[in-house]
Amino acid sequence: MNALADEAARQLEAAARAARAAAADLARAPRPAKDLALREAARAICDAGPAILAANEADLAAAPDLSAAFKDRLTLTPARIEAMARGLKEVAELPDPVGRTLSEWTRPNGLVIRRIAQPIGVIGMVFESRPNVAADAAALCLKSGNAVILRGGRESLRSVAAIHAAMASGLRAAGLPEAAVQVAQTADRGFVGAMLRAAGLIDLIIPRGGKGLVTRVMEEARVPVLAHAEGLCHTYIHGAADPAMARSILLNAKLRRTGVCGATETLLIDAAIAPGLLPVLVADLREKGCEFRADDRARAICPDLPAAAEGDFATEWLDSVLSVAVVDGVASALAHIRRYGSEHTEAIVTEDAEAAAEFLNGLASAVGIWNASTQFCDGGEFGFGAEIGIATGRLHARGPVGLEQLCTYRYHMIGSGQVRP
Amino acid sequence: MNALADEAARQLEAAARAARAAAADLARAPRPAKDLALREAARAICDAGPAILAANEADLAAAPDLSAAFKDRLTLTPARIEAMARGLKEVAELPDPVGRTLSEWTRPNGLVIRRIAQPIGVIGMVFESRPNVAADAAALCLKSGNAVILRGGRESLRSVAAIHAAMASGLRAAGLPEAAVQVAQTADRGFVGAMLRAAGLIDLIIPRGGKGLVTRVMEEARVPVLAHAEGLCHTYIHGAADPAMARSILLNAKLRRTGVCGATETLLIDAAIAPGLLPVLVADLREKGCEFRADDRARAICPDLPAAAEGDFATEWLDSVLSVAVVDGVASALAHIRRYGSEHTEAIVTEDAEAAAEFLNGLASAVGIWNASTQFCDGGEFGFGAEIGIATGRLHARGPVGLEQLCTYRYHMIGSGQVRP
Repeated sequence: MNALADEAARQLEAAARAARAAAADLARAPRPAKDLALREAARAICDAGPAILAANEADLAAAPDLSAAFKDRLTLTPARIEAMARGLKEVAELPDPVGRTLSEWTRPNGLVIRRIAQPIGVIGMVFESRPNVAADAAALCLKSGNAVILRGGRESLRSVAAIHAAMASGLRAAGLPEAAVQVAQTADRGFVGAMLRAAGLIDLIIPRGGKGLVTRVMEEARVPVLAHAEGLCHTYIHGAADPAMARSILLNAKLRRTGVCGATETLLIDAAIAPGLLPVLVADLREKGCEFRADDRARAICPDLPAAAEGDFATEWLDSVLSVAVVDGVASALAHIRRYGSEHTEAIVTEDAEAAAEFLNGLASAVGIWNASTQFCDGGEFGFGAEIGIATGRLHARGPVGLEQLCTYRYHMIGSGQVRP
Repeated sequence: MNALADEAARQLEAAARAARAAAADLARAPRPAKDLALREAARAICDAGPAILAANEADLAAAPDLSAAFKDRLTLTPARIEAMARGLKEVAELPDPVGRTLSEWTRPNGLVIRRIAQPIGVIGMVFESRPNVAADAAALCLKSGNAVILRGGRESLRSVAAIHAAMASGLRAAGLPEAAVQVAQTADRGFVGAMLRAAGLIDLIIPRGGKGLVTRVMEEARVPVLAHAEGLCHTYIHGAADPAMARSILLNAKLRRTGVCGATETLLIDAAIAPGLLPVLVADLREKGCEFRADDRARAICPDLPAAAEGDFATEWLDSVLSVAVVDGVASALAHIRRYGSEHTEAIVTEDAEAAAEFLNGLASAVGIWNASTQFCDGGEFGFGAEIGIATGRLHARGPVGLEQLCTYRYHMIGSGQVRP
């Protein structure tokens, strides 16, 4: 390990130890203190608007060769700063997830057992150069009683540091430990590496960003990770679908926003209904500028569709492109999804309740939808108020990760002198 | 990597791929089929009793230089075989954890969202040379709809293979995929290494055994692990404890069984009550053969107690030895536990409800107990029917891991044509 990486690892360890100590206090903080910290941080972000914008301009000036999309994600504006502050105030309004009694029962020997929600501890947040993620993530961690270490993309360090200063001032104003929100002070990539290896110091890593970032985090992390590497979502139009509903759902699932992880990337359509319906669906989407990659059976119905190449069904387009395959009923659709899917979100459109049940029960995906758009896979749409991400792993939490999913649990057992026979 | 390890990795990959395919079927298996498989496996274990005993004798004969304790864990007897079969039948009686609706709500737009319990997938079970763990673990995985790959200590391979044959015949009899229960066919340690690296093939590793095994698994695994490396449990006798209750609880917590992870290893006692009570507690335990390692303040009260050495308070004795420290109230007890504990189980004995609440809320441990023995940290005592282990990590499950904890969840969203605005 070189000297720079050594130094980054030392910085991470110091940050994580301070975060862990703060986490113990934050875990017991009453709701009013946490909400006050969030509202004061919101105010501090507004007050510090000019300073945050100046930091952001310095970040932009230091990295002149960015793509337009990258630059857009990195750029802060007065409106975006206001939106961050509003986000903090919204999180303050959400119920406190900590201390909820999740279940309670009494044993025959009189012992009362309670399962109680508690914060996870220290969360490591690794994200791309999108500074507003720092405020969102810090707010959700704070409200759920978790300390957080923020590491944004190195192009955004000045912006993130300015936002962090506002979060710290909110914590101070509420008498909560400032160390509960930490930020990487170095652009060295070794800091991220140290975070991913920090088992025992960091309890959970949440990466936010593109597939490249998330995959790297998943592969390198020795700490548990909650994330999705991709959202290769399917909409399956079953033979008993209502055609008008199928048109409206597919249009929304594919094109409402093409860059979100819940956007449909592949249309599966039953052979029984495809000859009449597929040309209509294609026309709807094409009118909105959508392109297609179709299998041979779909091209037999719509010969003008471009042929899908090897790998197209495994591609998360995140764009106005739709893969299309004709299938033969629920089992055939499930087989396609099992082969190419990412266990994120899949929808079936059908009027046949039995087919819907067979489809939903046959999925391993985090979210299965009957007769609605895949774009509903979102913490806000689930009623969580806010989300820190979407998880497609098998452990702890799946689907949108909100305040409740940022908690773990513990047991309290209340006795009256019981001993075990 | 040498050729042997390569071969072990290939074997693991083949086993894991077969297990994953079987897991998809097992996840949808109805309860009667799973219960039938368990009862038929129980019968097969009884029928194959002589073959299992012969395999076990061959294991014992092949490893003549074992310690008495090791040999005892490895040895099967007709009574132990019967107990294994009984265990399988008991798991068949437990409720099916799969498919439970964990929560359900309706959104303002009419979407109904259900959170539903589902199996995790493929579980890797790494255990020491205790063959009965194979039957217990396979039964719990099967009932919870998970496929399992069993890797027992290499001294027990023949015994585990014989037990596995009985499990396979139960699966066959119930029309369930035999591949749902896999067993390592090799004594090569590379097989365990391959299991621990099998991210994407194995969803969860559960190690069962001593601290050495569990720590190695935790350090090496790239797959999520559910386990506890040690149970350094504390019983804290608060100043307002009922002395008779304190005596009875401590005796049970320390000595009922000293080798279990829920056994108390350290007594913390308030300075206010120690002068009168500590000598009585020491006499109770000493009468039963318990030894002590005491701090200076305890030795000032009971001068004949041996002095605790550096590291004694961080030692899980798993024996008739008790570390003793005098503390000054709840905060002082919590500070000691935070410094030396393993976040497993801690108890407070007190008649003061406020002190109890302060103690329980201040713990990060998986289980906090008020006025009962730490030895209640057990799946059976929690009412789970059976447990595959105890977890002290922060994610997914904490405390006893039973059938419900062997499940994850997914969402079903039921619409009537909703699209996202």
